[in-house]
Amino acid sequence: MSNQTIETILNRRSVRSFTNQPVSVQDISLIVEAGLYAPSARNRQNWHFTVVTNPEMIEKMHQLTLQGMEQRGLKVDEKDHTFYHAPLVIVVSSLIEGFAEFNAGCAIENMAIAAKSLGIDSCIIGQTRFMYSQTNKVDVNLMLKVPFEYEHDCSICFGYAKGEYPVAKERKAGVVDYIR
Amino acid sequence: MSNQTIETILNRRSVRSFTNQPVSVQDISLIVEAGLYAPSARNRQNWHFTVVTNPEMIEKMHQLTLQGMEQRGLKVDEKDHTFYHAPLVIVVSSLIEGFAEFNAGCAIENMAIAAKSLGIDSCIIGQTRFMYSQTNKVDVNLMLKVPFEYEHDCSICFGYAKGEYPVAKERKAGVVDYIR
Repeated sequence: MSNQTIETILNRRSVRSFTNQPVSVQDISLIVEAGLYAPSARNRQNWHFTVVTNPEMIEKMHQLTLQGMEQRGLKVDEKDHTFYHAPLVIVVSSLIEGFAEFNAGCAIENMAIAAKSLGIDSCIIGQTRFMYSQTNKVDVNLMLKVPFEYEHDCSICFGYAKGEYPVAKERKAGVVDYIR
Repeated sequence: MSNQTIETILNRRSVRSFTNQPVSVQDISLIVEAGLYAPSARNRQNWHFTVVTNPEMIEKMHQLTLQGMEQRGLKVDEKDHTFYHAPLVIVVSSLIEGFAEFNAGCAIENMAIAAKSLGIDSCIIGQTRFMYSQTNKVDVNLMLKVPFEYEHDCSICFGYAKGEYPVAKERKAGVVDYIR
């Protein structure tokens, strides 16, 4: 099969080890555009993306996530970095209304696929919601330039994969049924 | 730019008019595979796809959706068909747990993008949740071969676009911020 798009979709893996090579401004712009062109229920486009390349801010988000997890009594492995030291993090937030999570999922996947087509790998990070565990929501939204009434969905980090490329996990059996 | 994947992502539209040309078994299989290769939180793959090409079942789902909407007092335009007479509907259901809607969103978008790369258009249908408004959930899950503890996410219909191809709606301004 020589369908580049489907090959890209099937070869995307969640990557958890990155080199320190930055993602170019041009590639960031293509990735963000792909996200913005996701479908959304009733064309609400009720998402917000915070595109973070500032290393101090990435570190601050990591620390806030750890603190939030610790405060909730969740086990934190100090060796792990929330964003695996990736040079680019996009924080996705939504105005919570019908289907907001589906919309956000579509946008995130568009960004992951677009990045992969550019040779850039990614990992979706759910635990950044713990940034909001211990601080005033308004403060974190301000810090991340998120409109005050928006809620955190998740984050996605991007970079160039370091080390062995992950093998696809086995697909779960029995999850597709047909009515022909 | 000659990046086929990004072009496909940017050119995908929600299409609401289809010819009666069926989607081939081979293309259905590629679309479903793309969905199955979406990322999921903790690799739970907690989704279920019901792939419906049976015209009577598509009509039954349409009628159940209409009845559910009417029962809730929602306005129903008899001219509209829930699936726009598309020849293929994939119903997506999930085991509800953390991030299930994001996972489902990623899977749905993978299917929409894969289809588009094959010349097949699609539309995500949220209102099929109304199928569950007036009937026992267990009955609808049985009818759609959905595991009994799973919940309906949404549906996505596929086919070959008929008539003028939709123009992209304007992208909302001010939804991206940068921290450099």
